[in-house]
Formats: sequence, structure tokens, C-alpha cells
Amino acid sequence: MIRYKAIISYDGSQFSGFQRQTKARTVQEEFEKTLSRLNNGKMITIQGAGRTDAGVHAYGQVIHFDLEQERDIEKLRFALDTQTPDDIDVISVEAVDETFHARYNKHLKTYEFLVDIGRPKNPMMRNYATHYPYPLEIPLIEEAIKDLVGTHDFTGFTAAGTTIENKVRTLYQAKVSYDEERQFLVFTFTGNGFLYKQVRNMVGTLLKIGNQRMPVEQVRIILEAKDRQLAGPTAAGNGLYLKEIIYED
Amino acid sequence: MIRYKAIISYDGSQFSGFQRQTKARTVQEEFEKTLSRLNNGKMITIQGAGRTDAGVHAYGQVIHFDLEQERDIEKLRFALDTQTPDDIDVISVEAVDETFHARYNKHLKTYEFLVDIGRPKNPMMRNYATHYPYPLEIPLIEEAIKDLVGTHDFTGFTAAGTTIENKVRTLYQAKVSYDEERQFLVFTFTGNGFLYKQVRNMVGTLLKIGNQRMPVEQVRIILEAKDRQLAGPTAAGNGLYLKEIIYED
Repeated sequence: MIRYKAIISYDGSQFSGFQRQTKARTVQEEFEKTLSRLNNGKMITIQGAGRTDAGVHAYGQVIHFDLEQERDIEKLRFALDTQTPDDIDVISVEAVDETFHARYNKHLKTYEFLVDIGRPKNPMMRNYATHYPYPLEIPLIEEAIKDLVGTHDFTGFTAAGTTIENKVRTLYQAKVSYDEERQFLVFTFTGNGFLYKQVRNMVGTLLKIGNQRMPVEQVRIILEAKDRQLAGPTAAGNGLYLKEIIYED
Repeated sequence: MIRYKAIISYDGSQFSGFQRQTKARTVQEEFEKTLSRLNNGKMITIQGAGRTDAGVHAYGQVIHFDLEQERDIEKLRFALDTQTPDDIDVISVEAVDETFHARYNKHLKTYEFLVDIGRPKNPMMRNYATHYPYPLEIPLIEEAIKDLVGTHDFTGFTAAGTTIENKVRTLYQAKVSYDEERQFLVFTFTGNGFLYKQVRNMVGTLLKIGNQRMPVEQVRIILEAKDRQLAGPTAAGNGLYLKEIIYED
């Protein structure tokens, strides 16, 4: 048995998320279908590092799976890349130690969130950025976002009812920049783990701060109170990208 | 009667082109449906400056139409923008002289053509750039593209069977640049008019030159021979954008 690690990218707009579910098109299902076809029809299960939601995109999702025979890496990558549907691409495949686990091995994840603040919005980007049609004071967002960096209990930024006990995570990077050409705000977050809907709730809150409907101190208040009610709305999934995953050696 | 000029953008991927046709979704049909709804159900016909094909996008298509009553410009723009489908946006509306005609008034058009030369391709861009997976010598394209600039008979670059008599057009700008971040070739063409499929045939030929399956002199040969058989294949519509139209005053 040989374990393979693959980096894949996908356009999330036609998927009901990464994780397999009944009666909905998912990345996992489509990928496993192709992989099984390449394995004489024998079903192969994949494990993904991040369970992206419906509409969420990935440039650097990492998965692993086991095959009985050793394969030529580039041939396997090419076969997977060309035989998976058009909205999934396979960037790289490598053989790894059989103890490697895409989700459980320690890693840093980077998410990007694109907000189209152009008026009117860019129709080509309607599935690839969240349109925000209200006035924004970007300096307020720049100030508030700094409070997210560091080790915090992010309970206030996760979906209510999450079952995970430990909600302490470390955010190493949280920044916002303005892409003048595309009229996009680009949020970037790098951390050792993210809670369910955490990025989208952080962005929803930061946009509300930028729109001056919440004070700039609100991020700190939410972190301290650990109360989801104090945060802004969950930003839509179409602006979110799983950008990169870096594993500790 | 008041004539209005509007600049619209659209994502061509779900349209069978700009121009109305039976049994196919078109930009013209969707726009006219909305416009008529805003006109007490009375049908309004629009005229577009360029008849973009299926899959072709626009950032700056110009249309005109007539309304019986005078309207508040920004209210009309907002109503059209929000009531047309998601893949059409209305950038501006203005009242113009009733002699203005989007197609027949003299103008310069700029088209852009995006070629994704990343390997593997970017799945998010599969409807918004044409993927070219073969090796390319960009300097050869840069050299060949210069021969397109100027006033020429572009018969060799249009679709066979075109009924327009005069195929002489002036190209003021023809250039290619490489967008390193996205791994895209960006072609830009500005001219006083373009023949049917001209841009896509020029790009198809230039890619073949870059791939060294045609000599760098091929552009000149095609222009002189006026023979479509000598040109490269028609590049796919998904990479093409009608970027901007500038009218002579």
C-alpha cells in the first residue's frame, strides 16, 4: 500500500462543498469516482485537509489516499487532472509516508476572501467574489483586523452549535489589501486551524466595522465575550478560497 | 422620444451570444425583457455596438434604445442593473442625441483575449480564459503581432462566407503581455472595426506561431494572400472580452 498526497484546486460554485453527502454534487465524490475508475473500479476514499462549504473555492486543497500499487507520479497526476470534471484540477501528486494524514498532520492554512466593492459589480466574478455595495472605510478594517492576530478563543466567530470543544486557535496573519485594478478587497488569513465558518464570520464582522455599523473595537469585544451574537453576519461562501496548506515537517 | 445610450457588461458563459435568436438565451433578449417590464410591458428593442458570440464576455458593450418618457438616469441605470439577470450589469446610462446609433456611429473598439498558459489551468477561470497547454515562445508572438497593426484587408482572418464586402479595417493597437501572477497571456486589439471571428482567428494564428508550428512571417503572408486557409484555428470564445468602445465626437 502506498499513500499519496495531492494538491488540488477547484471551482466551488457548482459543488455542494468538499465533503461527500447524499444527493448533492461534492468534490470528494467526483474525485473518488475518477480515482476508483483509475483503480480498476475498486472504490478509494480520500481525506481532505479542509472541508470547504458549498460555493467555496480552493487553489491548494490537500488530500491523501492509498493505492495498492505504486504509480508513476506524473502519469497519475495527469490522469486525475484530465479525467476529473472541468472544475477540479490536480496540481501535484506525490508519494508520502503512510503516517501522513491531510487533516491530522499539523499544518498552517491560508484562506483568502475576495470582496468586490466595485459599483456596479463585475458580472464575471459573481461566483468568485462577494459583492459589497455599501460604503467602506478601509482604514477601520485595517485597524480592527489586527486584533484577530494571535492566539484566541474564537468561539464568537464560529457557527453556534459547533461540537468541537477546544476553540482556541492561533492566527499568524490577518490582513486586508485593496486591489485597485479589480476594485476588490482581498482578505488573507493564515492560522493553525479554523473553526466552522470562522473566516466568513470574521469577514462579515470586518465589513460591518468598515461600514461603520459596528465600532472598531468590536473584534476585541467578540473575542473576549465569546458571543456569536455580537459578531456580524456570515459572509457568503463565493468569496472564500482555501489558498495554501503548509505542513510542519 | 428620448434616446438612451448604456454601457453594459456581461458574463457570456451562459449566453448564446448578444444577438436575439429563437430558442436560445441571449443578452439582447434578457435586456429587452427587463427594459420592457420597466416600460409598462411595452416592448423596446435595443441596438448593440458589437454582436458578441456565444461565450464571449463584455466589460464595455454599448447599446442604445428609445423611451417615450424622460427618465431619471441613475434610477433607470439602477433599475436595469438590479432587474437584469445576475450575469448582466449596467455600468452607465445617459440620454443622447436621437441620431446616435451604437453600431453605426464611428467608434474604436478594444477587445482583450485571455489565454491561460498555467499548468494545470486555473479551474476558476475555465469560462473566462482559453487554456493553452502547449509550449509557447512569447517573443515570436510579440514579433508577429506587430504585422497586424495598420490598415489591412483582413479577409484571411475572418470566417469564410462572410457577406460584408469591404474587409479593410485599421488596427491601431495589437499587443500581447504576460500576466505573471495569473500565468495569462493578455492580447489587446484596438481598431475601427472587426470582422466576424477576426480576433479569435488572429489569436489562434498567433498561438500557432508561438508554438512554432507556423513561421513568424505567417501573419504577413495571410494578410497578403487574403486566404483563411493559411491562418490558424479559431480560438475559443471563452477568452474573448469586448473591453471598451470609444465613439468619435
